[in-house]
Amino acid sequence: MTREDGRADDELRPITITRNWLDHAAGSVLVEFGRTRVLCAASASEGVPRWRKGSGLGWVTAEYAMLPAATNTRSDRESVKGRIGGRTHEISRLIGRSLRAVIDYQALGENTIVLDCDVLQADGGTRTAAITGAYVALADAVASLKASGALAASAQPLTGSVAAVSVGIIDGVPRLDLPYVEDVRAETDMNVVMTGDGKFVEVQGTAEGAAFDRSELDALLALAEKGCADLTRLQGEALAR
Amino acid sequence: MTREDGRADDELRPITITRNWLDHAAGSVLVEFGRTRVLCAASASEGVPRWRKGSGLGWVTAEYAMLPAATNTRSDRESVKGRIGGRTHEISRLIGRSLRAVIDYQALGENTIVLDCDVLQADGGTRTAAITGAYVALADAVASLKASGALAASAQPLTGSVAAVSVGIIDGVPRLDLPYVEDVRAETDMNVVMTGDGKFVEVQGTAEGAAFDRSELDALLALAEKGCADLTRLQGEALAR
Amino acid sequence: MTREDGRADDELRPITITRNWLDHAAGSVLVEFGRTRVLCAASASEGVPRWRKGSGLGWVTAEYAMLPAATNTRSDRESVKGRIGGRTHEISRLIGRSLRAVIDYQALGENTIVLDCDVLQADGGTRTAAITGAYVALADAVASLKASGALAASAQPLTGSVAAVSVGIIDGVPRLDLPYVEDVRAETDMNVVMTGDGKFVEVQGTAEGAAFDRSELDALLALAEKGCADLTRLQGEALAR
Amino acid sequence: MTREDGRADDELRPITITRNWLDHAAGSVLVEFGRTRVLCAASASEGVPRWRKGSGLGWVTAEYAMLPAATNTRSDRESVKGRIGGRTHEISRLIGRSLRAVIDYQALGENTIVLDCDVLQADGGTRTAAITGAYVALADAVASLKASGALAASAQPLTGSVAAVSVGIIDGVPRLDLPYVEDVRAETDMNVVMTGDGKFVEVQGTAEGAAFDRSELDALLALAEKGCADLTRLQGEALAR
Amino acid sequence: MTREDGRADDELRPITITRNWLDHAAGSVLVEFGRTRVLCAASASEGVPRWRKGSGLGWVTAEYAMLPAATNTRSDRESVKGRIGGRTHEISRLIGRSLRAVIDYQALGENTIVLDCDVLQADGGTRTAAITGAYVALADAVASLKASGALAASAQPLTGSVAAVSVGIIDGVPRLDLPYVEDVRAETDMNVVMTGDGKFVEVQGTAEGAAFDRSELDALLALAEKGCADLTRLQGEALAR
Amino acid sequence: MTREDGRADDELRPITITRNWLDHAAGSVLVEFGRTRVLCAASASEGVPRWRKGSGLGWVTAEYAMLPAATNTRSDRESVKGRIGGRTHEISRLIGRSLRAVIDYQALGENTIVLDCDVLQADGGTRTAAITGAYVALADAVASLKASGALAASAQPLTGSVAAVSVGIIDGVPRLDLPYVEDVRAETDMNVVMTGDGKFVEVQGTAEGAAFDRSELDALLALAEKGCADLTRLQGEALAR
Repeated sequence: MTREDGRADDELRPITITRNWLDHAAGSVLVEFGRTRVLCAASASEGVPRWRKGSGLGWVTAEYAMLPAATNTRSDRESVKGRIGGRTHEISRLIGRSLRAVIDYQALGENTIVLDCDVLQADGGTRTAAITGAYVALADAVASLKASGALAASAQPLTGSVAAVSVGIIDGVPRLDLPYVEDVRAETDMNVVMTGDGKFVEVQGTAEGAAFDRSELDALLALAEKGCADLTRLQGEALAR
Repeated sequence: MTREDGRADDELRPITITRNWLDHAAGSVLVEFGRTRVLCAASASEGVPRWRKGSGLGWVTAEYAMLPAATNTRSDRESVKGRIGGRTHEISRLIGRSLRAVIDYQALGENTIVLDCDVLQADGGTRTAAITGAYVALADAVASLKASGALAASAQPLTGSVAAVSVGIIDGVPRLDLPYVEDVRAETDMNVVMTGDGKFVEVQGTAEGAAFDRSELDALLALAEKGCADLTRLQGEALAR
Repeated sequence: MTREDGRADDELRPITITRNWLDHAAGSVLVEFGRTRVLCAASASEGVPRWRKGSGLGWVTAEYAMLPAATNTRSDRESVKGRIGGRTHEISRLIGRSLRAVIDYQALGENTIVLDCDVLQADGGTRTAAITGAYVALADAVASLKASGALAASAQPLTGSVAAVSVGIIDGVPRLDLPYVEDVRAETDMNVVMTGDGKFVEVQGTAEGAAFDRSELDALLALAEKGCADLTRLQGEALAR
Repeated sequence: MTREDGRADDELRPITITRNWLDHAAGSVLVEFGRTRVLCAASASEGVPRWRKGSGLGWVTAEYAMLPAATNTRSDRESVKGRIGGRTHEISRLIGRSLRAVIDYQALGENTIVLDCDVLQADGGTRTAAITGAYVALADAVASLKASGALAASAQPLTGSVAAVSVGIIDGVPRLDLPYVEDVRAETDMNVVMTGDGKFVEVQGTAEGAAFDRSELDALLALAEKGCADLTRLQGEALAR
Repeated sequence: MTREDGRADDELRPITITRNWLDHAAGSVLVEFGRTRVLCAASASEGVPRWRKGSGLGWVTAEYAMLPAATNTRSDRESVKGRIGGRTHEISRLIGRSLRAVIDYQALGENTIVLDCDVLQADGGTRTAAITGAYVALADAVASLKASGALAASAQPLTGSVAAVSVGIIDGVPRLDLPYVEDVRAETDMNVVMTGDGKFVEVQGTAEGAAFDRSELDALLALAEKGCADLTRLQGEALAR
Repeated sequence: MTREDGRADDELRPITITRNWLDHAAGSVLVEFGRTRVLCAASASEGVPRWRKGSGLGWVTAEYAMLPAATNTRSDRESVKGRIGGRTHEISRLIGRSLRAVIDYQALGENTIVLDCDVLQADGGTRTAAITGAYVALADAVASLKASGALAASAQPLTGSVAAVSVGIIDGVPRLDLPYVEDVRAETDMNVVMTGDGKFVEVQGTAEGAAFDRSELDALLALAEKGCADLTRLQGEALAR
């Protein structure tokens, strides 16, 4: 009983991390988890939001969005509807929190980095792909701030790396990195964000069909630990290129 | 090293569940977790949203909001700002998902129940209080639908009960049901929603300060299991009155 | 031919004024006119809106809103609709003007008091209950400003008290303090705001069915004078407790 | 001690009512109260809003707005701000209620008439000018519905006429039809809407400076009765032309 | 084969330019192109938008809008809809650019002039009438700034004049200044803005039915040159009065 | 005196047209004009907007937007601002009109095609790149409708092809296809949309600095004719691949 795309239950989809996909942004990454394709752009600017001025601390935030044609059936633009939906809000906040978990505000100084994660094509796991790619764009932006002199060469605003993956139970079997066809069938769905040294930043598990028990939760966490470790390695390789 | 309010680390705040707080709503509960006070009102109506018409299935949804003077410093109304914030969206969605986990749509028939959870006073744990109170209001609304004949006396639209509690690590110690003063100091903060028979519906853990490891996660889950069991018992007592 | 609830035509519904209903607000009152229940919270802060800065004058304003389940049939949230309706705007402005009629801005100094009047349950007369309760919350907020030293103990920012009541003609008979069932049947409906010493602050009369003549207007005004005098006495008793 | 513009205290400003000011609208009136200039256009259409369909009853509503350059200092457009202000809402509702007081919905049949009252130049009394002009435009629209056959020649959807005027107390003296310079100085300000046969439709009195007593209220009402009678006569003359 | 209104193909509709139509605005013009009637009001104020402060340069901008009853069938208010439509945005921007083409910002100094162009009645060509009238209001506003001393008598902020006209091909024949009945039938529709000395400021041609070739384009441009020259003369006469 | 990027004055930037860039959309093209990069996705669906139902005619529309990091300095999201700007509206409308110029609605039948043009990177000429790419995506969508049977194989809903290019005068010299550095310096700027057989669909010329005369206009039109012919050839080659 294998998966539709032939993967093992604990295997990631083919992951591609293309750096410098844009010419202007301080850091930009096109990240692909299978057919899911997210453009992560890091824009760096001097100064911080008003409520933080004079604190000597930097700021990192994120915005997530989906192009209308990213999904199977075209979805309406939030700019046209005039309001941002709950799902978009929720994911933007999640990405921001995840990245801030590895930021030393003091070391960043009064600089702001905004991570724009725009889903060009969606096939499940867009938020986890976004976090994984955004970390790489963020690392490039930090390097760019150093190159431009906005940050001292010795500054270490990144205290570690961060990656994310989805896990879920399909037909009673825990699986890693769900594409859309698995996602809609999952009884339980969990997104896990972890640091490169194996600690948890976010754990968001939801019973879609039936409530899950402690042993199922443990199995999902183990799978996520495996997937995040793989992604951490791939991020490292991409940054080394 | 006791807590400011003298509680044991695995002890809930004083919990009050007052049913029938309003005259009009099908079910209404004023729920108090210490000084946190949430008014949960269930409005039942025949029919379902358009996208569900003719399916024979019911619908349950929730809206969360906070009165301006609920917090220490007055916050602006979202109606005045003209848009709902990300936090509000996120919590409304969480409450809705939590309640739907114990709903049998078929048994509910084409009826809709909306749970309005309005925070009259906030002192930490508003979303978990809201879920805990909303379940009781929902149970009363189901009874009211039966009383009015909109639902057959034999229908069982509720497949179980649901309760929620917050847990967190403060100064390295896992604690149950955090009030505001503890919440702001927590290194890790988790909201857990469970069914009355001890299964998980939602697990949302966030590293506020430092990332957390697996053993800390396990300790928090154990604490949440204890707290939800206590709340399940209190819900049962309230419904039995 | 008595009223459905057995009251005399010039008799108020049972009035309850519960002070200090909230822990955070400078003043907070749960006011009840029969089944109409309004939570009035006064938030005091140093400083005034920008257009008033440096004037040495204070500011008092009000916001009125209704919880979705306050009415018989659930009404949509204005925050969800993304705009405030005309009725809400109108009542917020009325409450603000009414309270400002008894404020000495000079004596208040550059402090701002916001009165939030949230209708928890509606059964006619929500705006008049709101004004009546908000005055008591305002008086408590002034006392709180003095207690905190933000205002000199000798300052007298309140030049008097203010109360409000609805009157209307039902089946040709003028009646005081209309509940919902009378309100919808009224040919003429009037809201009157008066000071504690018997002067008019606002008179808002509307012909719902047929236009009214001068003698009907006079009868309604007399009834309102009686009702406001009763409310003034009840406000005094509440503040004396 | 005369008024700045030389009028007696109970004298209206020069009133001009120009019918058929537009080519398209079913009725259109440019009404001038001194320098206040309001364009009132009545658009008639078959059918009624959804909530009224099949009732056999018609509908009349109104929208009030002010051009940006109508006032001394340019005011921002509400379309640009993206929301309608409380004052605009309030006046639109007042005009609508005032006109509906003289409408027999049954006789109107399932037709809708919308009255657009756009203030081209503002110098006090824009809402009372709007009501006075809108009635004439409404009468013309009814005639136009008859001419087009949408209404039977014998139908009498208008049960009377309606006019409005402002009154106020300036330096202790009650005065009729206040221009801007008097309006800002008024201690008490009242807008009164009356039918052609001398009954009240709306009485809206507001204490701007100090609360007012019953005898002041009586003096203002008497003045308003005089002013509305004068306006009723001028409306009749305009419609006879 | 003449036009419905008897004009020659290269003839403008009757043009009326009435100056000083309002009492408050620095410049105000009621401009009529046949039945199209646009009120153009210029409001002048000291200072410039924030992004221009300290530059020593002035600013000129425009806002276009249409009253609901201006068209044959009533159109909804953009303030009620809560958003400005694409067509309104587009025309406002066009008017602003057109006027700025004849402004010397340096000579204007840090003053701002806003041109409000409100269509009271629409019968084709509202944007070209607006530009033509707005220029005259702008000239009057400049004179008013000089009269009030806000601008030196010797300052020359206007470097020329500007006028606009529509041209189109109907049944294969190029025609000048299209009323609504011709506009809807035009295969090609062009709006041309020109300076008083015969240069182009804006050329906006659109194939409504079929694409047009170069010779048709040339014919339309010639017609527009003739029309703008006529309008320039009429503007001069109006300003000389 | 050559151009910064070494091109001849009448030479296009390197143009790339990559078809099938997305997996879901009926047609999708990544079009590049130098560093300008626009993703054009065509979504086809059965049925038409309500106002067109039952007419037997199809509908084609377009939406243009820019990712926040597309420009040198990050720009705010219109979804976050809650409203679409004038420029976005204007360009969306232009793209829609341009494509509709080569559509036979009858032959399309009651199908709708939406063209989403999202600028991933901006370096001048985004609207002309969008139109040029959108045509190719549209052609692919038509083929896809035929392949799926929604359209008869013999249907010819496309009556031709359409392409667009910008031209401008820099330092007195007319140039083709302006990148950002030239665009900001242009005295006159024109966007021209043409059919594959050399006719004009849209001509939008704007004097940025000084008004332009007829001979300059003629030179720009000639340059645009050359550029559109080149683009038409490149579109044909892409579609032939």
